[in-house]
Order: sequence, then C-alpha cells, then structure tokens
Amino acid sequence: MIAEIISIGDELLVGQVVNTNATWMAQQLNEIGIPVRQISAIADDEAIITRAFDEAFAHSDVILVTGGLGPTKDDITKNTLCSYFNTVLVFHQPSFENIKRLFPNRGVEFSDLNRKQAEVPVNCTPLVNKNGTAPGMWFEKDNKILVSMPGVPFEMEAMMEEYILPHLAGQDNQRVVAHKTIQTQGIGESFLSEMIREWEENLPSTIKLAYLPQPGMVRLRLTGYGESKEKILEEIDSRIGALQKLIPDLIFGYGDDTMELVVGRLLREKHLTVSTAESCTGGFLAHMITSVPGASDYFQGSVIAYSNDFKRTFLGVSDESLKQFGAVSEQVVKEMAIGARQRFNTDYAVSVSGIAGPDGGSIEKPVGTVWIAVASKTGVTAQKFMFGEHRGRNIRRAALAGLNMLRMKLTVDR
Amino acid sequence: MIAEIISIGDELLVGQVVNTNATWMAQQLNEIGIPVRQISAIADDEAIITRAFDEAFAHSDVILVTGGLGPTKDDITKNTLCSYFNTVLVFHQPSFENIKRLFPNRGVEFSDLNRKQAEVPVNCTPLVNKNGTAPGMWFEKDNKILVSMPGVPFEMEAMMEEYILPHLAGQDNQRVVAHKTIQTQGIGESFLSEMIREWEENLPSTIKLAYLPQPGMVRLRLTGYGESKEKILEEIDSRIGALQKLIPDLIFGYGDDTMELVVGRLLREKHLTVSTAESCTGGFLAHMITSVPGASDYFQGSVIAYSNDFKRTFLGVSDESLKQFGAVSEQVVKEMAIGARQRFNTDYAVSVSGIAGPDGGSIEKPVGTVWIAVASKTGVTAQKFMFGEHRGRNIRRAALAGLNMLRMKLTVDR
Repeated sequence: MIAEIISIGDELLVGQVVNTNATWMAQQLNEIGIPVRQISAIADDEAIITRAFDEAFAHSDVILVTGGLGPTKDDITKNTLCSYFNTVLVFHQPSFENIKRLFPNRGVEFSDLNRKQAEVPVNCTPLVNKNGTAPGMWFEKDNKILVSMPGVPFEMEAMMEEYILPHLAGQDNQRVVAHKTIQTQGIGESFLSEMIREWEENLPSTIKLAYLPQPGMVRLRLTGYGESKEKILEEIDSRIGALQKLIPDLIFGYGDDTMELVVGRLLREKHLTVSTAESCTGGFLAHMITSVPGASDYFQGSVIAYSNDFKRTFLGVSDESLKQFGAVSEQVVKEMAIGARQRFNTDYAVSVSGIAGPDGGSIEKPVGTVWIAVASKTGVTAQKFMFGEHRGRNIRRAALAGLNMLRMKLTVDR
Repeated sequence: MIAEIISIGDELLVGQVVNTNATWMAQQLNEIGIPVRQISAIADDEAIITRAFDEAFAHSDVILVTGGLGPTKDDITKNTLCSYFNTVLVFHQPSFENIKRLFPNRGVEFSDLNRKQAEVPVNCTPLVNKNGTAPGMWFEKDNKILVSMPGVPFEMEAMMEEYILPHLAGQDNQRVVAHKTIQTQGIGESFLSEMIREWEENLPSTIKLAYLPQPGMVRLRLTGYGESKEKILEEIDSRIGALQKLIPDLIFGYGDDTMELVVGRLLREKHLTVSTAESCTGGFLAHMITSVPGASDYFQGSVIAYSNDFKRTFLGVSDESLKQFGAVSEQVVKEMAIGARQRFNTDYAVSVSGIAGPDGGSIEKPVGTVWIAVASKTGVTAQKFMFGEHRGRNIRRAALAGLNMLRMKLTVDR
C-alpha cells in the first residue's frame, strides 16, 4: 500500500507557511508501514486539484488531502470533491451538532456559512472534527482511498490519530517498514562513506541506507522492508552493531539524539559538572550545553576570553605559553581547560581556541585551525582540528567537536 | 512565467526533514513576480524523478529542483538528469578548483567521490557552489528552464541569491518588481500591525506589504510593481520614511541587516568595546555578537555565571542583593552589568538574568521572566521582559532584546 499527500492552499505556494502538516503525516504513515510516494502542495484551484487527484489515483492507493475546507470563498476543496466523485452535498446532522457544540451561547452569531460546513458529499464517510467546524471526508473508489482533512494542524492531527491511522493500519498487513537513525560526528559525508563502504555494500537488499548531512555531523538512516516490524528491527540492529564496531568514535547517538542531549545525559547519570572556556566559539559551546532543559544541574558557567589579557587573568594561562606558542596552541588551550576547571570548580572543563575567520589566519595557522582541550581529574587532553573557511560553520563544528571530545572522555574516565 | 519546485529526497517522504527549502524558494520566486504552481517532494528514484520532470515541463516554465546531488550512492539526481536530457557527464575544471579550495592541503585525502562531484552534464550551464562541493546545473529546453541545486539550505540559498534569481528576474521584463525589507524588533506581529494600520491602509495598490515574523522580531517586506525599478524604489523609500517616523524605536535595520550586524557597526564606528554577563541566555548573547566577522575588534569577552557563587566572585554582585531580591531582579542584573564592564574594562556591558524554562518558574517570577541591563559611563539601565514558555525562544528573544537595548543606548549616549 502506497500513500500520497496533497496539501491544498495558496499560502504554501507563496512561501508564507511551511508545510509541517505533510512532514508530520509522512512520519505517521511510515510508522504504520505505509511508504509515501509523493508530497504535493497545490493551489486552491479546481482544475489543478482535479489533475492532482487523477495523478495520485494513477500511482497510489491512499491519498491524504489537507486544506481548503474553511468557510470562506477561497476554500473550494469540498465542491471540487463533489464534482470529482460526481455526487451532491447533503446535510450531516452529527457534524451540525459538533459545530453547535463549538459555538455555545456566547453571543456569537451562528452564520449560514457555519451551517453549510455541516454539509458533506453523499457518498463519503464523514469524520467528525472534534477540534473544529469542518468535517473530514473518507472516500473509496476502485479499492483506493482518498481522505480530505482540514489544514489546521491540530484538527488534522486529531483526525489522523483517532480515526484515519488506525483504519489505514488495518487495511494492509503485507509489507511493513521500519527505520532507525544513527548520529555520527567528526567526519564528512564522502569520507564516512569510504570508511563504511564494505559494510554498506553488504547490506541486504531489504535495507536501504541514506546519508543526511548537517554542518559537522552526518545522520545515517537505515530503512528496512519486510513482513514484521520485529524482524526488520532485529536485522537493522544487527547491522548497527557491526557499524558500531567499525566506527565507535564517530557514532554519538541514535534516533533523535543530539550531541548536547547525549553529553547532558552522561553528565547527569554520573553526577558530574562541567564548565567551558571559549575563544573562537564565542559562547556557542556554552549555548549548546545550556539549550538543554535542566542544564543548570551540571553546567556551572563559562568564560569567553577573546583577548590574551583575560586568558591570563580569568583562566590563569601563563604569559610564557602565550608568548612562546601563541593563543591558538596546544599549550594554551590545555591551560585554559585546567584554569576553567579550577575557577568554576567543576569535574570537567572544555576549552576552545582557534581562528574562526574570515580574518586572522596565517600560513602556519590558517583560518579554520582550532585547538580543543578537555580537562578532568585524570588529566587534560588536547586535539587540533582543521575546519574550513566559513566562520559560522567553523564555530558550529568546533563546538560539536568539543562536546564530542567531552563525550569520549566521559565514557573513558573512571 | 510560472514556476514549479521539485524537492528530491527520501528524508522528506519519511517525515524526517521539513521542506523549508521549498518554502524559502517559493517566497523568493514570488518576490520577483514569478508565481509557483506546485511544490512536490519525491523519492530518490529515477522513474519517479523522470515522471515529475515530464509533468513539470507540461505545466510550468521554470522548474527548480533541489537535492540528490551528494557524493554517495543514494544520490542519483545527476545521472537521472543526464538520461533525461540525453547527454553525458564531462569534467568541469572550475567546479574541481572549487572542490579543491574546500579541501585544502591539510592532510585530508582527496577522494574519488569528490572528484566525481566536479562532473556535470555537457549541455548544462554549471553553477559553482561556493559553499559546498556539488555544482548547480542550469538546463534549457523548448524555451523552458530547469535548474538543479544541492539540497543543503545555505548552499542552495547562496546559489539562488547570487545567480538564479537575478537571471530569472531578467527573463521576464514586462513587469518590474522591486522590494525592500524593514527589520523590527520588540513587538509581536498583531500589535505591530495595529500600530501601523493607518500607514498600511494608505499604501498605494502597487505596493504590497508582507509580515514575516521570526522569534523576537518581525520583518516587513514592501513589494512594489511598476514600469521602472527606480520609480518603484522611490515610492517605497518615501513610504519607509513615513514608517520610520511612526515607529523609530522598533526599526533596527533594513534589508539583510541583523541585530548583531547593526550593533557591531555602531560599536566599530564609535570605537567602543562591549562585554556581556549572562545567566539564562547561557552564551547565546555572546554567540550572536561574535557571529559577526571581525567582532574581536569590539567584543572583549563574557562571563556566563549560572550559579550565584560565580555572580559574586566573577562579577562582584553583592550577597545582600542576591538574598534580598533574588538572582532574577533589577538590582542583581544591574550589578552584573556594572561588574562585567569593570572586569572586562569595556565601554559597554550587557547583562541578562532570567528564567528560560521549562523549570524554575514561580508565581511571582514565572517562566519567561527576564531582566536585562546595559551599563556604560553614563550609568546603568535595566528593563524587565515577560517572554513565553518555550526555552529556546526565550533565550533567543532575551539575547535580541539585550542587543536592542545596547543599540538604543549607543544611539543616545554621547
């Protein structure tokens, strides 16, 4: 069984509204094992809607339509459905009762437009909209299904969850889809793909791999097809197990994990605290850590020291190190981490010093050169990174790399 | 001229990624007067992509395609384009140079996959991707245009802004469109619209106003239609002049101005320096300031003090104030700003203390309560804000409000 999503509304085509409805519906359909073939956003226009329905019926078994069911003149979906299925509107008492329930005696005029909203095409199964006035409509034709829903997200979501998804899940139990996502950090898409090529080539034909890159990280999504969700997930888990052995340092989480969540979880579990000392990341590392609710349980604070003066006075970096090696050096970044750990009295401290660009580079230390250190009671370790030329991405990649170093030290330290 | 957007990528159809690319592209196309007929998201599948191209060519003049240009096996758009336009791939030296620039000699292996990315179909105009390795491709067929772009948002956006939009705008010269954007801060969309209603109602029919809200700010876009760009811009500028008189404190910039750019420009012009002392913003304020290239000329540093201890020791906040008023109070936030200004020896200092949520709120100080202060040689001023319940947005709005207070003090102080 294959699905298609059609979102009707001019607001989508002028770029005023992001189509989050379609993303949510696609997620839900995939979860019950119904893959989505296409998502289309089209105008409130009878000819265009009709063509889109024809196209969708030619290729898909389930067509989920949202939008265009409001009471105003620009909403034409219901009349178009009537013409399309060659039928007429009839008054639907339960939908009318529902609309009356939504307009209790509050001095609000009950308009003719509201009354018209209780009309539905005679050959559909009306779906009562408990959060709004426009009923949903379930049509069947040639063993295929078309469902029309309102475009208001929480009205559509309630209808999907309470009626449509359970009914669709019952229609088809021949092919099941399941997927898992692996979060990796520290290596680009093409290098990662070279590293795991053999593993990728050995995947069975029932499992597909997708690379989803973001600045500083790549998500890997494994999608499996088969007869039972359990069996697919078993197969996927065994493949992930093999991958975990292949690139243990690069994988930091699964599913919706983010680096800051994973690190926060580790710190909380072990009852440990952290502080940061930042130069080129300019507060972004602290921001990532503190973007997690409850971060105050393990985050104590940070010093952002742009000038060498403050690296000395706030963090106790030695004059000699600054003079001999420069601010962007192993020696200085280590002293920054040790200093922050002492000043903030934390179990761990992460420090970053680098050249984010676009200015400030030299031949020995080009833009993108970043030193990162992590200090704990077991000592201090530092690593040099060579990022790119883009300031924003260098800042993001440096903060991510710093969190990853902290994550690795947290898993190694006893 | 009518456009169509085709987004290629399985991640869109499983609901893992929201199609914000298409929304942004639709906005941009509408701005230059090209309406969008349809937005489609489809799978990385040759047959499906080919059908979608056929459909699009049948109904639209411009087809903008994103995604599927990565170096890995699941990305098949380039080969599909080759088959579709019945052509072959050739090596493109400028794209290769661009890829080499992105992977300078830093000990990183240059992979075969990277080299392959420099190949393009022989009959297209390649568009160099200054932010990534995959070149864009501009095809023409039967007086219609198809452009293929990478799916990474900032790579696509740069290509659109620098090449594609100007070229498309030049194709259709019967009707000229021009627009300007006004950046406002500190007031929501509906309140702003009430404040400027009369001004809005008096706009001529040739000028359209759009509200583009973001957390903490609202952009106003004026789009004018007419016969010459000069005349349109003249009319728009005179309307903006009237608006500037109406809401001088709310407008912080124009066009691509961001708050951090505007504040940075003011500090640089006046040869002044700034530091920050942050609690609930957790480094995001410093991050905004330091995201601007060259910020080291005016930004000295920041202390992020989550605990009261560090507010005392690092910033010199008095024990009495903390005990009597609590950390989120006018008294404490003023002492934080004064302390940061002294410790960092800067002309200005901005401090923030508040409850970002979701925990930590009380009846007197609910989640979203934020105090912000700015200190300079003329004294210290503080203001209380009541934001919402969403942690991420509270952090962003507080940082923006802090920068806006700094901006206003910078324009008033002598």
